[in-house]
Amino acid sequence: MTSEIPAEALEFIDGPNFATVATIQPDGSPQLSVVWVTREGQDVVFSTTRGRRKELNLEADNRCTLLISDPANPYSYVEIRGTTTMTEEGGRELIDALAKKYLDKDRYPWDDGTDNVRVVVRVTPTRVVFLQPR
Amino acid sequence: MTSEIPAEALEFIDGPNFATVATIQPDGSPQLSVVWVTREGQDVVFSTTRGRRKELNLEADNRCTLLISDPANPYSYVEIRGTTTMTEEGGRELIDALAKKYLDKDRYPWDDGTDNVRVVVRVTPTRVVFLQPR
Repeated sequence: MTSEIPAEALEFIDGPNFATVATIQPDGSPQLSVVWVTREGQDVVFSTTRGRRKELNLEADNRCTLLISDPANPYSYVEIRGTTTMTEEGGRELIDALAKKYLDKDRYPWDDGTDNVRVVVRVTPTRVVFLQPR
Repeated sequence: MTSEIPAEALEFIDGPNFATVATIQPDGSPQLSVVWVTREGQDVVFSTTRGRRKELNLEADNRCTLLISDPANPYSYVEIRGTTTMTEEGGRELIDALAKKYLDKDRYPWDDGTDNVRVVVRVTPTRVVFLQPR
């Protein structure tokens, strides 16, 4: 039990691998979605838009849990529980950087309209569980 | 917004695909792990052992959320929120059936000892979100 992400698990985040992110619904139940991720040191960073369900949930309760698997072995994964901060600053730059990482495109191609306000979500780990294969 | 799992998403469950499951920690934060799944009709069924974190969490709060992706397209996934029931009955048969499905082995090979009490967790969907690619 630690709040440090081990080096092997940082590699899962550094590759173009998808994370499942859990936020807390108003009724206390977990909400899950899939996100692109990057990191700054030990903080895991992902993008959302203002008003989306997980953004609303994080406004109300900033706790968040991420799970990301080893692309080479689905029996190995890291669970990262943490607290989040959100900012619109750098929101467009982040989603474009993620589009580069995951799609090899210079700009994110899938915005529904021009009025999406992009939000940077930064998760600071408070507890990390790393499951390695037997 | 529905509580019905659509036919395409049932196929994700029927294939040997991994699900991420979220339960609720005593402090209200989400706990995530990866599980093998099968189903009976619209109910999603997975295995755990007595005393494991997610089993303890589900004893205290029986709400659970699962996410499973399309193996052919990671941008398509189904999020299933539901309520769970647990029983020891059929626990051994279930884990062996899952070992057959995922490992093509007749018996589950990874029990740490003979004293693991296997529990069947059955999730009845209350809300289903199906994300399909653009």
